[in-house]
Amino acid sequence: MKLADVQSLRDNRNLPIDKVGVKNLRYPITLLDRTKKRQHTIATVNMYVLLPSDFKGTHMSRFIEVLNENRECIDIRKIGKILKQMREKLNARKSYIEFDFPYFIEKEAPVTKIKSLMSYDCKVEAFGDSHTEELFLNVEVPITSLCPCSKEISSYGAHNQRGVARIRAQLAEFVWIEELVEVAESSASCEIYSLLKRPDEKFVTEKAYNNPMFVEDIARNITLELSKDKRIPHFSVEVENFESIHNHNAYAFINR
Amino acid sequence: MKLADVQSLRDNRNLPIDKVGVKNLRYPITLLDRTKKRQHTIATVNMYVLLPSDFKGTHMSRFIEVLNENRECIDIRKIGKILKQMREKLNARKSYIEFDFPYFIEKEAPVTKIKSLMSYDCKVEAFGDSHTEELFLNVEVPITSLCPCSKEISSYGAHNQRGVARIRAQLAEFVWIEELVEVAESSASCEIYSLLKRPDEKFVTEKAYNNPMFVEDIARNITLELSKDKRIPHFSVEVENFESIHNHNAYAFINR
Amino acid sequence: MKLADVQSLRDNRNLPIDKVGVKNLRYPITLLDRTKKRQHTIATVNMYVLLPSDFKGTHMSRFIEVLNENRECIDIRKIGKILKQMREKLNARKSYIEFDFPYFIEKEAPVTKIKSLMSYDCKVEAFGDSHTEELFLNVEVPITSLCPCSKEISSYGAHNQRGVARIRAQLAEFVWIEELVEVAESSASCEIYSLLKRPDEKFVTEKAYNNPMFVEDIARNITLELSKDKRIPHFSVEVENFESIHNHNAYAFINR
Amino acid sequence: MKLADVQSLRDNRNLPIDKVGVKNLRYPITLLDRTKKRQHTIATVNMYVLLPSDFKGTHMSRFIEVLNENRECIDIRKIGKILKQMREKLNARKSYIEFDFPYFIEKEAPVTKIKSLMSYDCKVEAFGDSHTEELFLNVEVPITSLCPCSKEISSYGAHNQRGVARIRAQLAEFVWIEELVEVAESSASCEIYSLLKRPDEKFVTEKAYNNPMFVEDIARNITLELSKDKRIPHFSVEVENFESIHNHNAYAFINR
Repeated sequence: MKLADVQSLRDNRNLPIDKVGVKNLRYPITLLDRTKKRQHTIATVNMYVLLPSDFKGTHMSRFIEVLNENRECIDIRKIGKILKQMREKLNARKSYIEFDFPYFIEKEAPVTKIKSLMSYDCKVEAFGDSHTEELFLNVEVPITSLCPCSKEISSYGAHNQRGVARIRAQLAEFVWIEELVEVAESSASCEIYSLLKRPDEKFVTEKAYNNPMFVEDIARNITLELSKDKRIPHFSVEVENFESIHNHNAYAFINR
Repeated sequence: MKLADVQSLRDNRNLPIDKVGVKNLRYPITLLDRTKKRQHTIATVNMYVLLPSDFKGTHMSRFIEVLNENRECIDIRKIGKILKQMREKLNARKSYIEFDFPYFIEKEAPVTKIKSLMSYDCKVEAFGDSHTEELFLNVEVPITSLCPCSKEISSYGAHNQRGVARIRAQLAEFVWIEELVEVAESSASCEIYSLLKRPDEKFVTEKAYNNPMFVEDIARNITLELSKDKRIPHFSVEVENFESIHNHNAYAFINR
Repeated sequence: MKLADVQSLRDNRNLPIDKVGVKNLRYPITLLDRTKKRQHTIATVNMYVLLPSDFKGTHMSRFIEVLNENRECIDIRKIGKILKQMREKLNARKSYIEFDFPYFIEKEAPVTKIKSLMSYDCKVEAFGDSHTEELFLNVEVPITSLCPCSKEISSYGAHNQRGVARIRAQLAEFVWIEELVEVAESSASCEIYSLLKRPDEKFVTEKAYNNPMFVEDIARNITLELSKDKRIPHFSVEVENFESIHNHNAYAFINR
Repeated sequence: MKLADVQSLRDNRNLPIDKVGVKNLRYPITLLDRTKKRQHTIATVNMYVLLPSDFKGTHMSRFIEVLNENRECIDIRKIGKILKQMREKLNARKSYIEFDFPYFIEKEAPVTKIKSLMSYDCKVEAFGDSHTEELFLNVEVPITSLCPCSKEISSYGAHNQRGVARIRAQLAEFVWIEELVEVAESSASCEIYSLLKRPDEKFVTEKAYNNPMFVEDIARNITLELSKDKRIPHFSVEVENFESIHNHNAYAFINR
């Protein structure tokens, strides 16, 4: 039985569609890991193409077929290959892919050196046509921040809180997720761990007290660090503190 | 034209359904407010009835009709009337209603006395049949907690963070949302405000440092307080700290 | 007692901060309503300013003070006044404000004409300096879509689903939320209601079956309509279907 | 240096705490998989113990240590071992553990037999003391539902939508996640796939049209099926439809 191909019908509205495809598909993927070579994780995937004005629709199932073929080893150095496959299979001039996933890094507690895993929300965004390709790596890094104003004006103590630093880096060359995480963690009042024993807790409490920082400070510190990196032509930094004295957040954003 | 009433068909599977109805309907409602008499808010509403085994389905549109009639003044002292209306209109033996909504209370900053609004996520749950009716009031109160262990072992400073205390109180008599909020706020290291000037920030920083508490302490303090209240025969308390030194939360739960 | 103003200290990193301020503050506001003049709703508010390179930090509490003064009547025609107040109070060259809120419109069922309220997630974004001001109105409109391919290839029936159309419109002149909602609702297979009786349900079922549309079709229909409106110099349209046959979504995006 | 153990201090409020521990910790785990033996996934983990009235607090870091030791092979048949380890390490009479995770099953499209992966949100809950242990397996299964009323009263078409069936099953003996998923999928108007080609889309469209079901029907079908299974002494079933003609959901719940 021959079934009609409605998507391929001619459209007369004379409107190309910038992005058309599948969104919010959860899929297991395997990534490169700086330490362990491979890391299994679960991604939420978006895949789009540019649809020319003369086609009524795209063929959504083909996106899943491309993902199926590539999910076993997502290497951001080879993401251009996936983008090209999408353009060929969908007969499109431009293609986009986005992966959101948690990524785990083993960290040692600062004093006892006990190991545990920290999770970081990451995102890879890439798009390309036959001439160029752009790639963005996003990391979201939980941090501790301690308020310089509160420390200065109070006779003792200082309010501190969990915050998050988000980096979106355009990559001209390969950069490890671990490298961006380290930039964020070293720019805050203190970094965050999954497992701390009492000597570690003493260490992080005192370290944060010795390093008071506003969201503004953390955003600037990260910016200074990333600006030195030739592999990252453009980036933005976002720092958000879940203020312990408010039910809203303090926020700073720098775009470079 | 006469349209078939499929829902009223006889069902032969011999299975009553505990709850059937509409869920996640967003609707503007008006509530009682201890200070200002009336408060406008937006609720997410669930409404269910018990469906006897011999009916194929319920009539979903009738729930919305009952809500429409009552939304202008939701008074928890009269919620039995809404439950009764549901049972009559849906021809059911038992009915359930749940409202989730943000509720705002004007607070004064502790030193400068400047006023601002704090929002609290609240929930009213009620169900009843022709004999009895049960009513639960839930409040979710953001708080500051300061870690007693961190304070004790550190030479200076102490990690602190935003936390949340959740109370679910069964009401035998009327209780104001404001009363439950006050119990939670007075049981933590410090309460939280939307607007604090520098003298206020000094005050809350020092107050939290002087009142170190674990989630366990806050849950116990709230429990002690609520246990004295004759209007609340049963309750549960849940305290969760968004730890500033971890990316997971500390948690305590007491059921009474 | 004189408390140090740490935020006003000189910063030597030579980095201005594009946006700094408060994020995710929930506050009750009052809006203009085309039918009822005023509508009470609850907004999630973000407020930022540009921070010059020579200041260490901004004064977060002042944002709340500006919001407090203006929340009783948010009129997007006067949002420039709020932006100006922010620049003055924060001593800043550029200011940003964002309100996210549910907005309710009373709709009549298509046959029985019974009235009920539909909620739409909306967002107002505005920013400005002493020379210019830009304003964006966003609406998120739930819709019904019925798949043209499924209808064409199947002997009977056609898969359909809830979808959402999102419009982000830059406004050169005033536009009602209601106008954008109507564009989105009239561009889909059928519009959505809170309350439908059986004759209405027959109507919407048949209407959707008679108007099969892909996400691509709906995005193009909305684009055609908005392109005619001189008050809207730029806009983007996003349509997302919560496919009833998949656990991921179909998606189309047009930027104009 | 000896650091004080504040948690072990005596508490005089005479209040045991039902559950105290860590919540919302994201961690990679490995599970049993019926087809492939092992499946890597990412869990959100909660771990609690009962705290006797005479202790001020629990030792949060020990929960993470127990998880670290066991995460490489979570087998629900051996979860009693983890619970016992928690009781020993935390010196507690009762322990609780909860894992929330996406689980992937490879499915064949109904006509073309093309394979793809479907994700299901699952949860394992277990708790125990020295005498007993209880284990609950939860699965959340996306489904297609087609409205019997809409089909009956309309001249053509019928509204249908994505829905979700949630099963919470107490296990007296081992049950595969895959078994509960199959019960839910076979009880709906049609099951859902990640990848469908046109002949498959025709098949699922017509199958759903031939199997109209309310949430009530799906909940009853699942209940009938699970009631036959001796390994499942108690269970609850929840079905929620994301109605394509409303912006709220239809809901049914049965507890057995």
